[in-house]
Amino acid sequence: MSDRKRILSGMRPTGPLHLGHYYGVIANWLKLQEEYDCFFFVADWHALTSEYSNARNIKNYVPGLVQDWVASGLDPEKCVIFQQSSIKEHAELQLLLSMVTPLGWLERNPTYKEQQEQLAAKDINTHGFLGYPVLMAADILMYLPFGVPVGKDQLPHVELMREIARRFNHLYDTELLPEPEALLTEEAKLPGLDGRKMSKSYDNGIALSDSMDDIMPKVRGMLTDKNRLRKSDPGDPSICNLFPYHKLMTDPARLPEIEEGCRNASWGCVDCKKLLLESMERFLTPIQERRSKLDADTIQDIVNAGNDRAREFAQRTMAQVREAMGFDF
Amino acid sequence: MSDRKRILSGMRPTGPLHLGHYYGVIANWLKLQEEYDCFFFVADWHALTSEYSNARNIKNYVPGLVQDWVASGLDPEKCVIFQQSSIKEHAELQLLLSMVTPLGWLERNPTYKEQQEQLAAKDINTHGFLGYPVLMAADILMYLPFGVPVGKDQLPHVELMREIARRFNHLYDTELLPEPEALLTEEAKLPGLDGRKMSKSYDNGIALSDSMDDIMPKVRGMLTDKNRLRKSDPGDPSICNLFPYHKLMTDPARLPEIEEGCRNASWGCVDCKKLLLESMERFLTPIQERRSKLDADTIQDIVNAGNDRAREFAQRTMAQVREAMGFDF
Ligand code: SF4
Ligand code: SF4
Repeated sequence: MSDRKRILSGMRPTGPLHLGHYYGVIANWLKLQEEYDCFFFVADWHALTSEYSNARNIKNYVPGLVQDWVASGLDPEKCVIFQQSSIKEHAELQLLLSMVTPLGWLERNPTYKEQQEQLAAKDINTHGFLGYPVLMAADILMYLPFGVPVGKDQLPHVELMREIARRFNHLYDTELLPEPEALLTEEAKLPGLDGRKMSKSYDNGIALSDSMDDIMPKVRGMLTDKNRLRKSDPGDPSICNLFPYHKLMTDPARLPEIEEGCRNASWGCVDCKKLLLESMERFLTPIQERRSKLDADTIQDIVNAGNDRAREFAQRTMAQVREAMGFDF
Repeated sequence: MSDRKRILSGMRPTGPLHLGHYYGVIANWLKLQEEYDCFFFVADWHALTSEYSNARNIKNYVPGLVQDWVASGLDPEKCVIFQQSSIKEHAELQLLLSMVTPLGWLERNPTYKEQQEQLAAKDINTHGFLGYPVLMAADILMYLPFGVPVGKDQLPHVELMREIARRFNHLYDTELLPEPEALLTEEAKLPGLDGRKMSKSYDNGIALSDSMDDIMPKVRGMLTDKNRLRKSDPGDPSICNLFPYHKLMTDPARLPEIEEGCRNASWGCVDCKKLLLESMERFLTPIQERRSKLDADTIQDIVNAGNDRAREFAQRTMAQVREAMGFDF
């Protein structure tokens, strides 16, 4: 291990990565891997908390997710890429931390209440779902990290994790567990094609693995400035659902031309979509080229190597955890 | 493995075994080991659910508990003696089962409500404590047993375990998990020295490892028939706190003599206690002789060998569990 600061982050394997994931999470991870000792994990046990009845789907998404990560530029030489359910120590730490975590802390967790309502249809009022923040705390604290990159909506979980770490340290009179800092990542920058949040369940995203043939009709059908019915109507990029895509994917030198042309009706939405398709092709081509070279064996090798490194770390931490508790045998 | 039916049972390491444990549990285990493939485990993670702040004590009680078991006649050649926290697969199964266990099932569990009140002072309103029956289900279902010997107070937990097994089987369209039968064991037959339940927290028991010097004053101070103030008063064995000890520990041929003598005031409580001391010595001597030959290394070897057998079984079950869920990698 280097003496760079360590950070942890994970993602659930719930389907192919889309552009929203890329700009919301992966782009940040690509920067982080240059600065920190990064552990990135496929949170497959997490996915079970809400998708336990589709366990097989979760499993099937795992290799593709890692393939997307590496194709996007995560470098297994620079960061540890591993799979949560392969490191059984996470289950042990989750069990031990659940002993010291008051129920009230979990029941008061605002995300819990919210998700419970949203996912009522999924029958997730389970012990495992309530314990989701404990599992998250175990996943993260296991690697004794300096910080954890999270979106604003995850802040209550980070606070809960810090409280669990404090309680553990206090109970066992130790300083073993850190209270990781929340490294706040920016909000998702890309709306879905239809203007709602980009999400697999709305089927309104563009996957990193989509071919241009898949993408073309999607872009053609994208919502733009609703008030602009004809090209001769002036438009407003600041309320247009498509313009954010240009801001991220198109050569910045072209942006003033688009904005002006849109406002003075010299540049139409069809032009705009054509240009966006070019930008997407330029962006996705290298990712997809890398992706096509990552066959199943290569991916498995990457995950196995990462698992070995993570497991070694986790076993060392668990020895320390048990020793701190006086529960070592 | 033989083709005898398999059963599972565990005990928390919360202190030295006392006579109440022996006659309430161990005597039954001694019979069971002749009839069944028995797995007996030290439930050290279970003890953490209520004693998490004294983890070190739990740990320290483990070897003595196994020593007491083997000294009492549990035969490591006939049964598998293992330590729960050494088989990490229990934590994984607990995690997976907690995903499919509705919170309501746990909250409605009558034992949960009761214990919560009793142990309010211990601050055990934790996620782990609520999940105690899930951990118990994992411990037991892991070994795909035919049955589980339990006291009446554990029946709700067994029912819950059967419900969890049914739900798992239904969700994943499998018949992997059995619905173990409750092999009802008789109620505790020995009251404490003071007439209350024999319990470490009341300090009203006789440990299997107590010397006769420890035991003498304890027996002398035992509560007997409260209405018999003098030897010349007739007594009533059926309401006497000491007489149940004779029924279990004294040569049955002597019982009529005691009963009659007590009722007609020819036999006094002092005689009765003297005889009980003799019976106890006869009972404890061989146990303590065996105990003294079981040094720390021998105990550790027994536990290690049992752990190996249990782990092998648990790993096989977990492979089947993951496969049934479609969560095998
Ligand atoms: S021209 Fe471009 S920015 Fe303007 S409304 Fe159409 S899609 Fe949006
Ligand atoms: S003589 Fe024995 S049975 Fe009778 S009251 Fe005394 S202790 Fe009990």
